[in-house]
Amino acid sequence: MAKFERHIFICGNQRPPGHPRGCCDPAGRAELQKLFKQKLAERGLKSTVRANQSGCLDQCEHGPNLVVYPDAVWYGGVTLADVDEIIDSHIVGATPVERLRMKDSCINTASCEHKPLPSDRNANKDVVKTP
Amino acid sequence: MAKFERHIFICGNQRPPGHPRGCCDPAGRAELQKLFKQKLAERGLKSTVRANQSGCLDQCEHGPNLVVYPDAVWYGGVTLADVDEIIDSHIVGATPVERLRMKDSCINTASCEHKPLPSDRNANKDVVKTP
Repeated sequence: MAKFERHIFICGNQRPPGHPRGCCDPAGRAELQKLFKQKLAERGLKSTVRANQSGCLDQCEHGPNLVVYPDAVWYGGVTLADVDEIIDSHIVGATPVERLRMKDSCINTASCEHKPLPSDRNANKDVVKTP
Repeated sequence: MAKFERHIFICGNQRPPGHPRGCCDPAGRAELQKLFKQKLAERGLKSTVRANQSGCLDQCEHGPNLVVYPDAVWYGGVTLADVDEIIDSHIVGATPVERLRMKDSCINTASCEHKPLPSDRNANKDVVKTP
């Protein structure tokens, strides 16, 4: 035995309801991490791939998030229904799931196509909606 | 901005006092993670290197543990006094701190030079100590 072949960090952070950044695990049940752990064990991968609970990964607006190392592949908007595909395609098959993958241009940015600047968010609030 | 150049996961797991595996953060104060975060910010590295709180990394017997990705360099027995050296030598200077580095042969093993097999631990208990 040696290092994990892959180490998956699944964000389990909570923020108060209504927080502008949102959070990855509002219920605090770690359901995504637990399901990854269970599914990896079912495939006999428990000793080589770890599904690790993680503190805030700081990409809250794209959550629920996870990152797979050492590949450094980031996923956003991950649901329980995506777990099998990520394991089978990426972890087993070495092909990341492109439809869930975060672009480099979305990671650690003040704004991106999914995340307007705070000033733009405020501007949108002032738009008078016509019926 | 893009992915973190380095992503440090610092174990903040607690186990009950006296647990045979021990744990990395018995007080639950995340002092190691907070100090990494502070020292990285002081060096202007906040946006490129993240000191992330982590759930159990499963190397409890060697704790307090952390792992640096994408390098996949593991450290054990890390104290607050080691934070500057890890940042300066490894994160800034790209030279891991060998005196704290966990050997591959110590990671994910049932036993190693620092961790006897449970049967050996029990055997040691039965040794009659002479005064």
